[in-house]
Amino acid sequence: MSLVVYNTITRKKEEFKSLQEGKVNMYVCGPTVYGLPHLGHAKSYITFDVIYRYLCYLGYKVKYVQNITDVGHLVGDGDSGEDKIEKQAKKEEIDPVEIAYKYETIYFDMMEKLNVLKPSISCRATGHIIEIIDMIKTLIDKGYAYVTDEGNVYYRVQKFKKYGSLSNRTLDEALSGERIEIATDKENPVDFALWKKAENNHLMKWPSPWGLGYPGWHIECSVMSRKYLGKTFDIHGGGMDNIFPHHECEIAQSEIANDAPFVKYFIHNNLVTVNGQKMGKSLGNFITLPDLFKEYNPIVIRFYILLNHYRKPTDFNNDQLKETKKIYTKLTETINNLRQELKQKEYTTLELVPEVEDLKNKFLDAMNDDFNTGLAISYIYEAQKLINKELTTTKTTSKLLALNNFITECAENILGLTFETTQNNKEQDLINIINEIRNEYRQNKDYQKADELRDKLTNLGITINDR
Amino acid sequence: MSLVVYNTITRKKEEFKSLQEGKVNMYVCGPTVYGLPHLGHAKSYITFDVIYRYLCYLGYKVKYVQNITDVGHLVGDGDSGEDKIEKQAKKEEIDPVEIAYKYETIYFDMMEKLNVLKPSISCRATGHIIEIIDMIKTLIDKGYAYVTDEGNVYYRVQKFKKYGSLSNRTLDEALSGERIEIATDKENPVDFALWKKAENNHLMKWPSPWGLGYPGWHIECSVMSRKYLGKTFDIHGGGMDNIFPHHECEIAQSEIANDAPFVKYFIHNNLVTVNGQKMGKSLGNFITLPDLFKEYNPIVIRFYILLNHYRKPTDFNNDQLKETKKIYTKLTETINNLRQELKQKEYTTLELVPEVEDLKNKFLDAMNDDFNTGLAISYIYEAQKLINKELTTTKTTSKLLALNNFITECAENILGLTFETTQNNKEQDLINIINEIRNEYRQNKDYQKADELRDKLTNLGITINDR
Repeated sequence: MSLVVYNTITRKKEEFKSLQEGKVNMYVCGPTVYGLPHLGHAKSYITFDVIYRYLCYLGYKVKYVQNITDVGHLVGDGDSGEDKIEKQAKKEEIDPVEIAYKYETIYFDMMEKLNVLKPSISCRATGHIIEIIDMIKTLIDKGYAYVTDEGNVYYRVQKFKKYGSLSNRTLDEALSGERIEIATDKENPVDFALWKKAENNHLMKWPSPWGLGYPGWHIECSVMSRKYLGKTFDIHGGGMDNIFPHHECEIAQSEIANDAPFVKYFIHNNLVTVNGQKMGKSLGNFITLPDLFKEYNPIVIRFYILLNHYRKPTDFNNDQLKETKKIYTKLTETINNLRQELKQKEYTTLELVPEVEDLKNKFLDAMNDDFNTGLAISYIYEAQKLINKELTTTKTTSKLLALNNFITECAENILGLTFETTQNNKEQDLINIINEIRNEYRQNKDYQKADELRDKLTNLGITINDR
Repeated sequence: MSLVVYNTITRKKEEFKSLQEGKVNMYVCGPTVYGLPHLGHAKSYITFDVIYRYLCYLGYKVKYVQNITDVGHLVGDGDSGEDKIEKQAKKEEIDPVEIAYKYETIYFDMMEKLNVLKPSISCRATGHIIEIIDMIKTLIDKGYAYVTDEGNVYYRVQKFKKYGSLSNRTLDEALSGERIEIATDKENPVDFALWKKAENNHLMKWPSPWGLGYPGWHIECSVMSRKYLGKTFDIHGGGMDNIFPHHECEIAQSEIANDAPFVKYFIHNNLVTVNGQKMGKSLGNFITLPDLFKEYNPIVIRFYILLNHYRKPTDFNNDQLKETKKIYTKLTETINNLRQELKQKEYTTLELVPEVEDLKNKFLDAMNDDFNTGLAISYIYEAQKLINKELTTTKTTSKLLALNNFITECAENILGLTFETTQNNKEQDLINIINEIRNEYRQNKDYQKADELRDKLTNLGITINDR
């Protein structure tokens, strides 16, 4: 079975064929760096991290570009309101660029905790003003954009007939959408900003043929994807909330500027809810990652997100999270036990074990079916059962090795899970010493002392199983 | 005693007075991101990290800008040869921007291991091409730069009379310097490039009034420091090897473009040697940080560097490093013992203890004397003695608390040392359990078993001291 992905453009699953053999160019919309990353970021960037890891596993040379929006994203998500970063800068009384760098840094720190790999290129909107101006000029030259007396440049949306096709909206529907703001100098309210004139109090601004200003929110992605991935590339990813208007606008910009199709596969992850409700700052149920990580190991959060298919919403609630934590702790224990056991074995070369090969093929089939991580994880559970069974029975080296290899390739490399082996090693060795002493006590029938020792370990949160 | 810093401009120690009350603007030359960071980077960025931390400790609001050189630094460090990043990109067969991002990421990872704080703003040369072109235009307009028929722009060095004053060289000396390359289109061989025409095979290039090209190495720092810190700012830092030509060129660019003095204090750290020899790729003694960290805890490297004054060279040799590792391990033990002891104490408010206050004043005096970290550390050693003495005698809470506070403020916050408490806690608790059993054996005169247990711990790298 070969890889099949759901393409938002065609609204169906399609066989994945890269434009160039052996290479995949992928662009994913990165964060606007004005606040702490939240659960929505976790879902989106874990989704594309697994897609990135899986494509690499399949042997593709993947160039993965993710942008950092550090200018031009306005509070209203449309063409009105303050710039999100400038607003935060005023609040924290530091430079907007300090705000952007601060939250970019926190974003990557949180992603590292979630074991999300860095993209091949992380690029900032502010670093590409020349290229942005260049693309806007082309759009004006081709009649798809216009400069107003007030010094703004807008995209003439009605001229781009495909507009709305990704989100399956007609122009009229788009027009009545909640995000459309009325700007007095637009030819048509549906038009969106490519370049905004900077007001006097606007801190981030650059010279342009249309005066001092800053780019609109959408143009950066068209510009940076072309610069690093070419006019047409394989995969464009993002959250479902980016389909309209952001990705519609990108298509409109890129296809006209480049005279070429923009993207072969658009992939969108679904969103997160909290206790069944939409998550939102105004709703008071907004969960940031730094807060969440005080309570939960980030890898448990990663696991929780992967239990669901990326195209389904993920509901966060404490009961399910706690349940998942237990399941993950047991899985971790099993894998650590396996590895402790293997340490004591003579080195043997890896042999194919049909039962494990079968498991791996099922795992890969699940991944090939539009990255069905939830189903894939069910085969990790099956491996867990096999490991536990093997450890309590024959402890056959070849089978334990094959199972370990399955865990490394599938759970660790592809799904990006971790099982904290290194940190635990010394601790485990110390526990082993104490256990030996305890066994000696028991052999000498000194049960009181043996129990005392067990209680001391229990106090440290360490459980001993007497066989 | 107030802060005194050695200013390369005046070649003497001066009282530090910031340009704006309560604020310090500091710019430090960051890495060229084309390879693994090495010991030279460790020395430079630890130096400025401590300066940054100390200025914050003194109550300044510090804006610390560090650049990332991701274009324009040529192999010869002058105006000839390949771009370092493009060269590496060809070698690794990936995009130059991927190279830059890859090594930028590794750089910050290594700095994090060394407990070097992120600057307020980390800015990339490629993100400031508009501003670079703008400054070059000004320099041309003022007659200090010229465009050649070949499409290059050079700075007319002889017109800037101060050139050479920072490095204390005359123009003639500069002219005969080893780094001066003969470019046929220069008016004078001493002139340096502001903008280079891109050859056809050059990957990183931008449109400019002088054709497609890329900036020279020096102009980025003049541009980014002005953009984020203003025309004149407090501190400019870098390695001594940056004084000539890099900082001379920056001064020449900035003071003419801005009609203002560039920097109040230039601070330069000395370089590193390996076994008394200059470190260099060609000399075969080039030590990268990822390699070094396989053998040494990065914090030991940080400590080793801080034992020396930043204006003295640091010689790395294994014997001294091993010795330092031992000293640091003992210091860490002492501090962990102190904190274990304090855990068992009732909570008490911090009281001033004259003996510890005196130590702290001496520590601060050392820091105020041009950041004399080596001397400052001698007071950490004195604190160590006091702690050990206190722990084996009266264990007075107020004194232990005051000493702990001294360690936190001076060793941890200002010097950026860490003593790995959290990770060690559970381990230490397990060791304590084993120790109790061992003491029981010894009380029962079962010395053989006691020795066996000690040997088992020794095998895990854990040393027991019988009192």
